[in-house]
Amino acid sequence: MPRVLRGVGELDTRCELLGETLEHPVLLAPTGYNLLFHPEGERATARGAADAGAVLVLSSVATLGIEETAAAAPARLWFQLYFQRDRDFTRRLLARAEAAGCRALVLTVDTPVLGARDRERRAGFRLPRGVRAENLVGASKDLAHGHSWSEDGIYSPLSDPTLTWETVAWLREQTRLPLVLKGVLAPDDARRAVEAGAAGIIVSNHGGRNLDTAVAAIAALPAVAVAVAGRVPVLFDGGVRRGTDIVKSPAPGARAVMIGRPYLWGLAVDGAAGVERVVKMLVTELKSAMALCGTPKLADIGRELVRGSGTRGPLDPGAAGS
Amino acid sequence: MPRVLRGVGELDTRCELLGETLEHPVLLAPTGYNLLFHPEGERATARGAADAGAVLVLSSVATLGIEETAAAAPARLWFQLYFQRDRDFTRRLLARAEAAGCRALVLTVDTPVLGARDRERRAGFRLPRGVRAENLVGASKDLAHGHSWSEDGIYSPLSDPTLTWETVAWLREQTRLPLVLKGVLAPDDARRAVEAGAAGIIVSNHGGRNLDTAVAAIAALPAVAVAVAGRVPVLFDGGVRRGTDIVKSPAPGARAVMIGRPYLWGLAVDGAAGVERVVKMLVTELKSAMALCGTPKLADIGRELVRGSGTRGPLDPGAAGS
Amino acid sequence: MPRVLRGVGELDTRCELLGETLEHPVLLAPTGYNLLFHPEGERATARGAADAGAVLVLSSVATLGIEETAAAAPARLWFQLYFQRDRDFTRRLLARAEAAGCRALVLTVDTPVLGARDRERRAGFRLPRGVRAENLVGASKDLAHGHSWSEDGIYSPLSDPTLTWETVAWLREQTRLPLVLKGVLAPDDARRAVEAGAAGIIVSNHGGRNLDTAVAAIAALPAVAVAVAGRVPVLFDGGVRRGTDIVKSPAPGARAVMIGRPYLWGLAVDGAAGVERVVKMLVTELKSAMALCGTPKLADIGRELVRGSGTRGPLDPGAAGS
Amino acid sequence: MPRVLRGVGELDTRCELLGETLEHPVLLAPTGYNLLFHPEGERATARGAADAGAVLVLSSVATLGIEETAAAAPARLWFQLYFQRDRDFTRRLLARAEAAGCRALVLTVDTPVLGARDRERRAGFRLPRGVRAENLVGASKDLAHGHSWSEDGIYSPLSDPTLTWETVAWLREQTRLPLVLKGVLAPDDARRAVEAGAAGIIVSNHGGRNLDTAVAAIAALPAVAVAVAGRVPVLFDGGVRRGTDIVKSPAPGARAVMIGRPYLWGLAVDGAAGVERVVKMLVTELKSAMALCGTPKLADIGRELVRGSGTRGPLDPGAAGS
Repeated sequence: MPRVLRGVGELDTRCELLGETLEHPVLLAPTGYNLLFHPEGERATARGAADAGAVLVLSSVATLGIEETAAAAPARLWFQLYFQRDRDFTRRLLARAEAAGCRALVLTVDTPVLGARDRERRAGFRLPRGVRAENLVGASKDLAHGHSWSEDGIYSPLSDPTLTWETVAWLREQTRLPLVLKGVLAPDDARRAVEAGAAGIIVSNHGGRNLDTAVAAIAALPAVAVAVAGRVPVLFDGGVRRGTDIVKSPAPGARAVMIGRPYLWGLAVDGAAGVERVVKMLVTELKSAMALCGTPKLADIGRELVRGSGTRGPLDPGAAGS
Repeated sequence: MPRVLRGVGELDTRCELLGETLEHPVLLAPTGYNLLFHPEGERATARGAADAGAVLVLSSVATLGIEETAAAAPARLWFQLYFQRDRDFTRRLLARAEAAGCRALVLTVDTPVLGARDRERRAGFRLPRGVRAENLVGASKDLAHGHSWSEDGIYSPLSDPTLTWETVAWLREQTRLPLVLKGVLAPDDARRAVEAGAAGIIVSNHGGRNLDTAVAAIAALPAVAVAVAGRVPVLFDGGVRRGTDIVKSPAPGARAVMIGRPYLWGLAVDGAAGVERVVKMLVTELKSAMALCGTPKLADIGRELVRGSGTRGPLDPGAAGS
Repeated sequence: MPRVLRGVGELDTRCELLGETLEHPVLLAPTGYNLLFHPEGERATARGAADAGAVLVLSSVATLGIEETAAAAPARLWFQLYFQRDRDFTRRLLARAEAAGCRALVLTVDTPVLGARDRERRAGFRLPRGVRAENLVGASKDLAHGHSWSEDGIYSPLSDPTLTWETVAWLREQTRLPLVLKGVLAPDDARRAVEAGAAGIIVSNHGGRNLDTAVAAIAALPAVAVAVAGRVPVLFDGGVRRGTDIVKSPAPGARAVMIGRPYLWGLAVDGAAGVERVVKMLVTELKSAMALCGTPKLADIGRELVRGSGTRGPLDPGAAGS
Repeated sequence: MPRVLRGVGELDTRCELLGETLEHPVLLAPTGYNLLFHPEGERATARGAADAGAVLVLSSVATLGIEETAAAAPARLWFQLYFQRDRDFTRRLLARAEAAGCRALVLTVDTPVLGARDRERRAGFRLPRGVRAENLVGASKDLAHGHSWSEDGIYSPLSDPTLTWETVAWLREQTRLPLVLKGVLAPDDARRAVEAGAAGIIVSNHGGRNLDTAVAAIAALPAVAVAVAGRVPVLFDGGVRRGTDIVKSPAPGARAVMIGRPYLWGLAVDGAAGVERVVKMLVTELKSAMALCGTPKLADIGRELVRGSGTRGPLDPGAAGS
C-alpha cells in the first residue's frame, strides 16, 4: 500500500545491526560448499560481498577454511556454527572465527537432523572428490566428507541432535561475539532466545529444505517480531528475490534480510562479480521500491505498508488461528 | 510451526493402542483383493507388515482366507468387517477372525452402498478369473465374485444398507474383540460411537472413493477429536504420504494413522519387501519430522504444531461454519 | 459431511412441488431450439422426460409449438415465458400453454436484454434455415428468426426490457397457472416475489451465460432460502452434474433442481433415450449419495450436510459481506 | 448480485464530472508515445476519442505536442503532468495545456522514480529514431529521448522525486484548471488530497507497471471512496476490460473509469476507428450489464451489487487487516 508525495529525492538504505552501521540491509546467508558453484569457492563469494558492501555469513561447511576466506577480501564477516558434538572442537572453531575477524556468531538451531531430501537422493548426489568441509576436518571421522539424508537413519555427523537451550548458555560463555540464533519460527522460541541472551534472531525455515510444509518464514515473521518487541534485531531469510520483498519484510525490529540462492546463482555465473551484481541489483530495486512506497528511510519503514499485517489480517500475530 | 533446541537425540515413536504398545503409529488399512497387486496377495502383505512391525487390518474382501493370511507371518492382525445380511454368516466370520488371532474388529460404517465409480466402469473393470473374496464364499450367491457400482441399482451384495446403531449393539454382543468404527466424519456420529461402546474410531472418507466431495478426513479430524475428548483413540486415514503428514494428523486422542495406497504400491513393486520398505520410509520420515519439530516423543505431540488448529482457524472444531 | 449407521435400505426421492408429487427432484430446464441438437427436437426431449418421470419446462423459443410437443409424449409439462411486448400475443401464448396441459408458468426475469456472448459472435452463429421459434411466430417481425447479442445495440426482439413487478401482477391476472419466477439471485427480490404472489422461485444465473461474473446460483441459494422462509418452493439450476450436487443444493424450501446442458448432451447423442438416460443416471447417483450421506428421505435433507452453510461460513446468508 | 424486474427500457450512462456531463463514464487514460502504436499517433487517438464521446487525457510524454493533438479533433481533453524539475518549464507547459483547451490537470503522483521494468530491459527497448516526448523538449537534456529503468540508478530525467504536498499547493496557484491527483491508493493520501484542494482522485497503481505487488486499484478503491466521502469524484483505472468491470467499480463518489491498454490495442489495429470501437464496445457492454443488473441509471449504482463490499467482506474498508 504505497504512499505518495513524500519527497524521495534522497534515499537512505542504512541499517543498524549489532552495533554497526551497514550500507544496506542485504546479508549473504551461510551456504555450504561454494566450490560446487565456482572454482574459487568462498574466496569469490567474499570478494563479491566486499565489493557489494554486504555482510557475509561464513558457513561451517565451507569448502575453504575461515582464515583463507577472510584473507581473500576485506568483507565484513560473521560465522555460522553447526554445533559439534566435540565441544573442544567447537571451542577451537570459535577461536578461529574470532581470530579471523568474524563479528558475530550465528548458531543454526533448525537442523538437529537433516530432513528428507528426495531430489538429492534420487540424483545420487555426492560431494565431488576434493570438495570437503575444511573447517570441520578433525571434528569426526565422516564429517568432512559431506552429509545427506538416508532412509535408514536420520542422524548425521554434521549436527548434534542433543542441542538445547542449555547448550546455548554454554556457547555464550565460550565467546565474546554476539550470538544470533538462526532458524527460529515460533514466537515462544523467539521470546526464549531473547531471554537466553541472543543478540539477534533470524527467522528462517532453512530455505524450505529441511521440514516440508513448515511455515514460510515471511508468514512467521510478524508474530516473532511482536514476541521480540524490539529487544533484539529480527532478521529474515527465505524467498527474498526483489527489492519489494525487502520493503515488505521488515517487522518491528527487523531491519535486514538474508539471501542464499540468489547470490549462489551470481557466483555460478560470474564468480565474485556475479555475487556483487546480484546484491547491487537488489539494493537498486530496494531503492526504487522505497521511493515508490514513499518511504525514503529504511529505518522508518513499518508494517503499515503491508496488507494483512494489521489487527485482523491473515498474517496478524494476534489472530491465533490463522 | 516447528520448535527448536529441545534435544532430540532420542526419538520415541511408540503408540499405545487398544491396550497394546506399537513400535510406531503406522497401520495398514484394510484393502481388498491384494492378489490384483502381487501373486502372493495378502500373504506378502502380512509378511511385509510383520517385518515392518505394523498392524495389518485384514479386509473382508481379501483374496485369501483369514487363516491362510494369519499363518503366513507373525503380523499383528485386526479384522475389517463388511457386515453381512446373513447374521449367522457374520457370526461365523467373527469366530474365524478371533480364532486366527485378530485383536480387534473394524466395522466399516461408511459404505452402505458403493458410490459412483466412473473410472472402474469406464475401464470395464471386472475381477480376473480366480480372484474372489474368499472370506465371503457362501455369504450370498454373488458376493464372492466382486462388486461394482451400476447405473441401474445402487445396492450391492457386499454391503448391508440397513446397518444402524442397533446393529452395532448386536455386533458387540457377538465378540470379545474391541470394536473400532471406520468411516466416521461427523462429530455427532463420533460421540454416538463412543456411547455405543466403540473402542476406537477411524476418521476416514474411504480414500475419497465412495462419496465425491465428502469432507477430507484430515479436515474432519479435529472436530471428531474434540467430540471424543480422549475417551477412545481416534485413528485417521486418507492421504498420509510423508512423515510430516503423521506429525500433523494427531489430534487429542489420535495416536495412529492408516495407509492404503502407499503399501499397495510397495506390494505391487516388490511384494513383502515393498510393503516393509514403504512403512519403514514413513517411519524414518516420521522420526526426521519429529526431530525437526522439536517433539521427540510421539505421544506428546499436540495440535499446537499445526496452524489453523487454534480457536479461530479454518480447521477449528469450534468454528461451526467453516 | 456424511452421517453413518442410519439405515438406508429404502430411499425416498419423492418431491412435493406445486401441489403434485414428483418421483424425483430433477426437472428439465427450459432450453431453446432443441432442433439444433437432434432432428426430432423437442418431441424427443418430451419423450425422454416422460420416460424418466421428469417435469419438462417448455421453452418460449422452442423449435416446435407447444401443442406438438405436448402431443409427443405424456410428460408433465410447465411453460417458460419470455414476456412479449405484445400483451395480446402473450395472453394467447398463455392460453395455448394452459390448453396443452402445462401445469405451471415460469417467467424468466433475468433476461431483459441478452448479455455479451462473445463465442456466439466470434463463431458467427446463426440459426440454420428452417429452425425458428415456432411459438413466437407472429409476435414480432424478427422474433422467430433467432436473436443474438450485437455490439451496436442491446435490445432484442425476444425480451421486453420494460418488465417490472407490475408486469408480474398483470400476468397473474391472465392465468390460473401457478407462477414461478426464474432467475432470482438477490434475497430482496426473492422476498418481493413471494409478496407478489409467486408460487415458486428458481435461483438461477441463466447458466452463467448472460451476465459475466454474476454470483453463482448455488452461492446465492442459501440467502434466498432464508428470505423465502419456506413460504414457496425454491428451485435451483446451474451446474448440477452429479447426484451429490442435488444432495448439496437443497436449502430450506428448496426441493428440486433443474438441469439444462446435461440433457441436451443426452439429446444430441441419443435423442429421447439420451435424455432419459441422463436423468436416470442423476437419479441413481442421487440415491447413492443419499445412502452414503445417511439421509434416506430427500424431503428430510437439510443444510447441515454442507459445510459453509452454518452461522459463520462463507455461504452463510447471515454473513453480509462475504 | 443482479436485481430483476426493474424496468430497463431506458438506460442512462451519463456521468457528472468536474462540472460537466459526459455521455458515458469511460475516459482514456494518459498513455505515452502513441506513435509507437500507429503512424498517426495521438492525432488518431484524439479523433477516436472525439468520435466515441470520450475524454482523452493527454500524456506529458506524448509524441505529438499538445497543440497538434488538440487541433486534430474536437475531443474533450485533460492534460496529464509529469512534474518537471524546472518550474518555469512546468508553468509554460500548463499554459500551453490551458491554451489548447484542456479542461483539467491530472498530476501523476505515483512515479517519483520508475520501477523495475525487466521486460523492457531484457528486450533492449529503446525509443525508435524520431519518436520523442515533444512536449518536454527543452525541459532537460535527456528528457525528450525516452526513459527507462536502469540497474545503476533509479532517478530518471522524467520524474521529479522531490515532489511533496507542498508542490501540489504550488501547482494549484499556477493554474485555474481543476487538479486531479492520479495514482493514489492509500486512504490517508486520498483524505489529504481532498484537503489539499484536489478536484478529483484517480485510484491507480500505474497499470501494475511501477511497483510490483502493489495493491490492485480495484481493491484499494472502496477504502479510498470511504475516506473521500463524496467530497470529490473518485475515478479508477487498472484492469477495466468489460462492461461488468465498470458496473462493479463505482464506489460512493466514483463515477468514471479510465482505460489504457484496451484503447492502445484498438489504436494499433485500426487507428482512430479502433480507438472508437473499443470505447463503444465497452459502453455497449456497460449498457447490457446495467440492464442485466437492474440498474438503469449509472449514477444510482451503488456498491450493494458487489459482494465483498459490505461491512464484513474482504474488500470492506472497515476491515483493517484485510
